[in-house]
Amino acid sequence: LNIALLAGDGIGPEVIDQAVKVSNAIAKKFNHEIEWTSALTGAAAIDAVGEPYPDSTHEVCMAADAVLFGAIGHPRFDNDPTAKVRPEQGLLKMRKKLGLFANVRPTFTFPSLIDNSPLKRERIEGTDLIILRELTGGIYFGERGRSEDGNTAFDTCTYTKEEVQRLAKLGFEMAMQRTKKLCCVDKANVLETSRLWRQTVQAMEKDYPEVTVSYEFVDAVAMRPVQWPSSYDVLITENLFGDILTDEASVISGSMGLMPSSSIGVHTSLFEPIHGSYPQAAGKDIANPLATVLSAAMMFEDAFGLKEEAAAIRDVVNKSLAEGIVTEDLAGKNKAYKTSEVGDWLA
Amino acid sequence: LNIALLAGDGIGPEVIDQAVKVSNAIAKKFNHEIEWTSALTGAAAIDAVGEPYPDSTHEVCMAADAVLFGAIGHPRFDNDPTAKVRPEQGLLKMRKKLGLFANVRPTFTFPSLIDNSPLKRERIEGTDLIILRELTGGIYFGERGRSEDGNTAFDTCTYTKEEVQRLAKLGFEMAMQRTKKLCCVDKANVLETSRLWRQTVQAMEKDYPEVTVSYEFVDAVAMRPVQWPSSYDVLITENLFGDILTDEASVISGSMGLMPSSSIGVHTSLFEPIHGSYPQAAGKDIANPLATVLSAAMMFEDAFGLKEEAAAIRDVVNKSLAEGIVTEDLAGKNKAYKTSEVGDWLA
Ligand SMILES: CC(C)[C@H](C(=O)O)[C@@H](O)C(=O)O
Ligand SMILES: CC(C)[C@H](C(=O)O)[C@@H](O)C(=O)O
Repeated sequence: LNIALLAGDGIGPEVIDQAVKVSNAIAKKFNHEIEWTSALTGAAAIDAVGEPYPDSTHEVCMAADAVLFGAIGHPRFDNDPTAKVRPEQGLLKMRKKLGLFANVRPTFTFPSLIDNSPLKRERIEGTDLIILRELTGGIYFGERGRSEDGNTAFDTCTYTKEEVQRLAKLGFEMAMQRTKKLCCVDKANVLETSRLWRQTVQAMEKDYPEVTVSYEFVDAVAMRPVQWPSSYDVLITENLFGDILTDEASVISGSMGLMPSSSIGVHTSLFEPIHGSYPQAAGKDIANPLATVLSAAMMFEDAFGLKEEAAAIRDVVNKSLAEGIVTEDLAGKNKAYKTSEVGDWLA
Repeated sequence: LNIALLAGDGIGPEVIDQAVKVSNAIAKKFNHEIEWTSALTGAAAIDAVGEPYPDSTHEVCMAADAVLFGAIGHPRFDNDPTAKVRPEQGLLKMRKKLGLFANVRPTFTFPSLIDNSPLKRERIEGTDLIILRELTGGIYFGERGRSEDGNTAFDTCTYTKEEVQRLAKLGFEMAMQRTKKLCCVDKANVLETSRLWRQTVQAMEKDYPEVTVSYEFVDAVAMRPVQWPSSYDVLITENLFGDILTDEASVISGSMGLMPSSSIGVHTSLFEPIHGSYPQAAGKDIANPLATVLSAAMMFEDAFGLKEEAAAIRDVVNKSLAEGIVTEDLAGKNKAYKTSEVGDWLA
């Protein structure tokens, strides 16, 4: 198993370390050999070579069967959105060059943590939804600019039928594996790109006669995950709506530090925790590594088809939660373990 | 007081009727004379004259000191987003022609209804925030279109410095009246229009030295109202982000049927409930009229500077809640009153 390792910034390296430990333990147990190749990205790469997604890193990713990613972002760039070189540019460049067109964001609850949620228990019990966010199109990658005097700015959102089909196909296929319910989220009452989305998905319905498709406006959808999240199964949406809705949905479980994600690509796939680089905690050995460990589980299952290995990782994570071998964010009044201690225990 | 009355579709006419009753009662008590002028809008206007915001309606609004608006939208347009004439076009045309550049959306809790919220009580107690949504710019009004073969679509988001300043000025002024905290919501790590927003607001900070301004990305902001809504005070944002965030925030109180809003304009101001036309309930005399009645209270205060009158309306609404004179959505196991009965009682 040839895996590129992009630890990135902040707590990235610490949480990635634990996922590597756990993956190596699983590989040993199931007789696989993993070859890890580390590469620079984010602020770390800017510091080292002047740009956030260097060609050398791209080559490592292209040669790998999967990419395990930590987090990027550094506070010194935060208050200067117009800085010429920013970590986020590396993220966008990486997504585009690796063709990571579909970000898969599962949202589910952990029975033992359900009371951490800001939402009432009866609202969220049984929540198990997936948001599929288009990741290489839309307003993120369209033309943008300023008038000469700098006083007028514009951004362009563009989509092609093929981009919509590629994402929607994944959505239909996932729905078939699950409860056969698909929701297409758009703003077709205003946007032309949304109307293209809706028409394209409507035309695909006949190929998946068993799937029930609903079409809902993004503003209405922004309300429902907070009201009745268990009423959704698979949602598909464009890049910017997906950015907002996936983060909103991540609050449901009350366990953001536990949520994994994957990005399915043309050239390879990438697996990463949904949390950010959390700079305040960097270097303190206190960050929760479980989202990254669970991202490694997704990698075993989705990139390598190794279901048993993935299940073994998920089992041991559940065990650590049940036995209270957890970092301070989950420890409550009990003993808090260090990031590395949790990783050691899991491994 | 010269008020244009745009009842619109679905439950619009029923809830507007109650707001008229209450306003007339208040006018009588405080010795004002109200002249109501009704005009067509939405699907009702499409049926009558073939378009959703006819010139005759525009003239009525332009001649009025304030507009009281019900709701628009009809299910027969919902599954056909490409229909040539749609009720929503009337809404957008009205906003543009009346110059309704700022949508003011307060979110607060009603102590007696706090347990209706999907969020836990301790998370939302004391919530009192206002989202100021820019309403006549951005991707709603930019150029959009299709390639000749129909397979590529685009939408353009545009903002000028003046548009941002106009909205932000209101935000700073509101913050000064409240806790002096302002949050500018954008996606400045990706969008050029967001960078213009951020720069423009940053440049205005020196004129309001007492206001503490924070700049946050829209995806992060999408999480916080669900986690700690009481940590916000005044938020300002562009049109599409505002569309999503205001609807998300409306869930907090658990009382969407009670939330009023106003839209501040160049030519006049408009007051409306935040709920939609709710076609399933239309004509049944069961819809909750309180959001519209509270919108009338906002109108007395903000359009006419009549604070006592507004307070009197709010008081009687609180009394109706306390005494259980409420429609079925709030009645629980107790007697549910009809829309018109609630209106009569309030009046
Ligand atoms: C950092 C930013 C550009 C990025 C995005 O908006 O896609 C992030 O919010 C994410 O969701 O991965
Ligand atoms: C109906 C639609 C065009 C409208 C909008 O998106 O502005 C609505 O959602 C609103 O918020 O008033």
